[in-house]
Amino acid sequence: MKNYKKVHVGSEPRTELHDQLNLTGAEVSVNNLPAGGGIPFVHAHKDNEEIYIILNGAGTMIIDGESFDLEPLDFVRVSPEGKRQLKASDDKPLEYICIQTKENSLGNYTQDDAIMIE
Amino acid sequence: MKNYKKVHVGSEPRTELHDQLNLTGAEVSVNNLPAGGGIPFVHAHKDNEEIYIILNGAGTMIIDGESFDLEPLDFVRVSPEGKRQLKASDDKPLEYICIQTKENSLGNYTQDDAIMIE
Repeated sequence: MKNYKKVHVGSEPRTELHDQLNLTGAEVSVNNLPAGGGIPFVHAHKDNEEIYIILNGAGTMIIDGESFDLEPLDFVRVSPEGKRQLKASDDKPLEYICIQTKENSLGNYTQDDAIMIE
Repeated sequence: MKNYKKVHVGSEPRTELHDQLNLTGAEVSVNNLPAGGGIPFVHAHKDNEEIYIILNGAGTMIIDGESFDLEPLDFVRVSPEGKRQLKASDDKPLEYICIQTKENSLGNYTQDDAIMIE
């Protein structure tokens, strides 16, 4: 089996990459909310830390009732227990990536994990 | 302590977000290679799976000697043992995110980890 896999993502409302990429350390989804749209529920997590990466558009995130605006290249870490809501702005869609990893799962940090070949 | 942290990333050559976001399950870096530029070494990893997310521009990745082109919204998973090289194309820069997570560290998958609040 090859040591890599590549997938190209289009503009679908939601693309989940865990199975497509054979990921073993993360869930990754790519999401497109239309202007005025939002995730229709508030949720938290049991074990997983989430990272939101804003790609395009504009929106608002609410964590534990605290609201803040989102713009491209904003990166947000949410702890498992954070009660989260996300919506696109009224006049712009919101394209973002959501990554889940298990809290406290990372062992080796940066250079400690790299092996230089040449 | 709040259950979230937000950081905005600019166009620096490399931004590492592990410390800035207090990440515990992943390393995340945002990288800008100029046209014609590349990572000047071949490397693999001990424990960490990598996910490359192409944001803008064009480039080439070489894994275990096999070369393929990169375009925006390509997602690539590389196993720890994959010997990897990355370069921007000669006429376009390459903006990408690199995520490291520990191989086989994810426990709960998608809905299994979510807790619905309301």
